[in-house]
Amino acid sequence: MLLKTPYLLFIGDAVDPLAAKVAQGIKDWRPEFCVGQFRQEGCKADMGIPELSIEEAVAAGAKTLVVGVANRGGVISEGWISVFEQALRAGMDIASGLHNLLRDEPRLVKLAKEHGCELIDVRIPQVDYPIANGITRRGKRCLAVGTDCSVGKMYTAIAMEKSMREKGRKATFKATGQTGILITGDGVPLDAVIADFMAGSIEYLTPDNDDDHWDLIEGQGSLFHPSYSGVTLALVHGGAPDALILCHEPTREHMRGLPGYSLPSLKQLQRTALELAQVVNPDCKVVGVSINTSQLDDEAAIALLEQVESEMGLPTIDPFRQGADRLADALAE
Amino acid sequence: MLLKTPYLLFIGDAVDPLAAKVAQGIKDWRPEFCVGQFRQEGCKADMGIPELSIEEAVAAGAKTLVVGVANRGGVISEGWISVFEQALRAGMDIASGLHNLLRDEPRLVKLAKEHGCELIDVRIPQVDYPIANGITRRGKRCLAVGTDCSVGKMYTAIAMEKSMREKGRKATFKATGQTGILITGDGVPLDAVIADFMAGSIEYLTPDNDDDHWDLIEGQGSLFHPSYSGVTLALVHGGAPDALILCHEPTREHMRGLPGYSLPSLKQLQRTALELAQVVNPDCKVVGVSINTSQLDDEAAIALLEQVESEMGLPTIDPFRQGADRLADALAE
Repeated sequence: MLLKTPYLLFIGDAVDPLAAKVAQGIKDWRPEFCVGQFRQEGCKADMGIPELSIEEAVAAGAKTLVVGVANRGGVISEGWISVFEQALRAGMDIASGLHNLLRDEPRLVKLAKEHGCELIDVRIPQVDYPIANGITRRGKRCLAVGTDCSVGKMYTAIAMEKSMREKGRKATFKATGQTGILITGDGVPLDAVIADFMAGSIEYLTPDNDDDHWDLIEGQGSLFHPSYSGVTLALVHGGAPDALILCHEPTREHMRGLPGYSLPSLKQLQRTALELAQVVNPDCKVVGVSINTSQLDDEAAIALLEQVESEMGLPTIDPFRQGADRLADALAE
Repeated sequence: MLLKTPYLLFIGDAVDPLAAKVAQGIKDWRPEFCVGQFRQEGCKADMGIPELSIEEAVAAGAKTLVVGVANRGGVISEGWISVFEQALRAGMDIASGLHNLLRDEPRLVKLAKEHGCELIDVRIPQVDYPIANGITRRGKRCLAVGTDCSVGKMYTAIAMEKSMREKGRKATFKATGQTGILITGDGVPLDAVIADFMAGSIEYLTPDNDDDHWDLIEGQGSLFHPSYSGVTLALVHGGAPDALILCHEPTREHMRGLPGYSLPSLKQLQRTALELAQVVNPDCKVVGVSINTSQLDDEAAIALLEQVESEMGLPTIDPFRQGADRLADALAE
C-alpha cells in the first residue's frame, strides 16, 4: 500500500460539498479507513464522521492526513499549511492529489524529514514501472472503457467492487487516477507515467491473483478522445481484460473539451475496444453497459436504460441509481 | 532547432560499423550537417568524411559534437569524456542519445556551464508539451504505422522526404525518436514524454504549414504491440495524418520481444489504423506499403513485393532497395 491507513480526512475550509468530493469518495467507499474529519472555520462540507483534532486523531490510530478538498487559486494556503505542520509534528504522513505538490513546500519537507514522516503526492508516480511484457497472468480482470472522458468509469468499477464483495466474491478495485488512489490507498497515477512504461505500470498494478479473483480496473480517457487515447490503449493492453464494461453519458454534446468531436456510438466503442483488447486477451468479452443518467429525470433515465439494453443485448444500468449488481452478476457468468 | 548545426560526428572507438549507425544515419540523410568525423584508436567504423581534430572542426564551423556511436557496458568511458571536455572547452555543444545521460557527468556539467555550452540528451524531452486540442491544422501529414516495432518506419519516412525533395515538393521528416532527432537536429522523444502530453507533443511537432507541404512523421511501436501501443495511438491521434503508410518485416516470427504474440496481417493493420486515424481526420487514407526485405534475396524480395501489391491493391516497395519514389507519388495523388 502506498498510503498508511487509517486516515484523518482533511476537509479544511471547503467552499461547498463538491470541493470535498475526494473526502466524500473515501468516506463512501472506504468508511473503515476514516477515523474522523478535520474541518476549519467556514467549512461547507461535512462527512458526518467524528470531528477530531490532530492529537485526537493520532490517539485514534490515524496514520495519514489525507487532503480531501480541492484548493483555490493554485496555492496551498497558510491556513492549511499550519494544520499540515501539526500533523507532521504528531507523526502523521500527509497524502494529497493537489496540482500544487506537498514536496514543493519547504516547511513541510523539513518537518517531514525531522519527524520521519512521508509527504505523498499521489499525482506523481512513486515506482519505477517496468516495460510491459504481455505475459498472461492468473486471475480475472475487468476494465471500464468510455465513449468519452469523465463519464463514470471510476464510479462503475468501484460500485462493482462493492457489489461483488457483498456477495462474498473476490474483487479489488484498482485505481489509475489520483482520486481512486486516495480512496483505496494505492494505485498508478497513469496520466503522469512516462510513455514507454504506461502498459507496464498496469501490468504491475494487476499481477497474478487467485483464479476466481477479479481486478476491477479504473478506466481513463477514451479510445476516441484524441488528447488521451494513448493512455486508454495502454490500459486496454496492460490490463489484458477478460471483460469490458462500456461507459457512457447520454447528454454529452461533444467529446469533453473538444467542440467539433462527436462521441462514438456504444456499438462503435464495443467493436473498437473489443478488437484492441483481443490482441492481448483473445477471450475478452464486452459484458455490460453503465450509463451515467445524472442529467435525466427518473422516467427518462429508466426509458433510456431499457432502450440501450434492448439495442445492445447487454445488461445496462446506472450504478448510482441502481447499484452495480447486474454488472457484477454479468462477470460471474 | 534543438541542435545547432553543423556537426562534428563522434565515432569514438566503435567496435564495428553497426555501433556507429547513428553517425551513419546522419551522414546518409543530412550530409550537409557533417563537417567531419572524430575517431579514436581502434575505431572500426568510417563515414568517409574528413577526419578532424576538435580545433579543426571548430575552425570549419562545427557547432555541436554529436555522439554517433553506441557505448558499451552502460558507462561513458574516460576516453570519451576527455574528448567531450575538449569539445566543451572549444565552445561546442554536445548532443547524445545514449541511455547514460551527459547531464549525469559532473565534469561535463561544470565545463558546459563555464563555457556557455549545452549538453543535449535527446532522450529527454526539452519542452513542456501541451495537452492535445484536436484542432485541424493546415498542411498535410503522413504517418508510417507498423505491424510491429523496428520494421523500418523511420527509414521509410526519411526516404520519402528525400524522394519528395528531389522532385521539388515540400516535405519535412519529423523525428519522434532519438536517432531521428540527432539526424535532423529536432523532434520529440515520444517514448519519454509524460502520458497526458503524448498526443499534444505530436501536435506541437507538426503545426500549421503550407497547404502543399507534407510532414512525414516517424512512427513508433505498433498498435498491435502491447508494450508500446499507447504511444502509437497518441501518434495516430496527435499526428492527425491525411495519409498512412503500412510498414512490415515479413520474416518476423513474433512481435519484437514478445514470444507468443503473432504479427497482425497488413489487412488487419490497415483496417484498425485507418478506423482510429479517422476519429481525428475523417479523410485519412492508406496510400502505400513499405516492406523491409533485408532478410530476403533479390528474387524472393521482388516476388513478395509483387504479391503484397496485388493483395493490397496499393503501391508496395522496399525503400532501401528501390527508393521511396512510388510512395512519394502516391502522396501526390
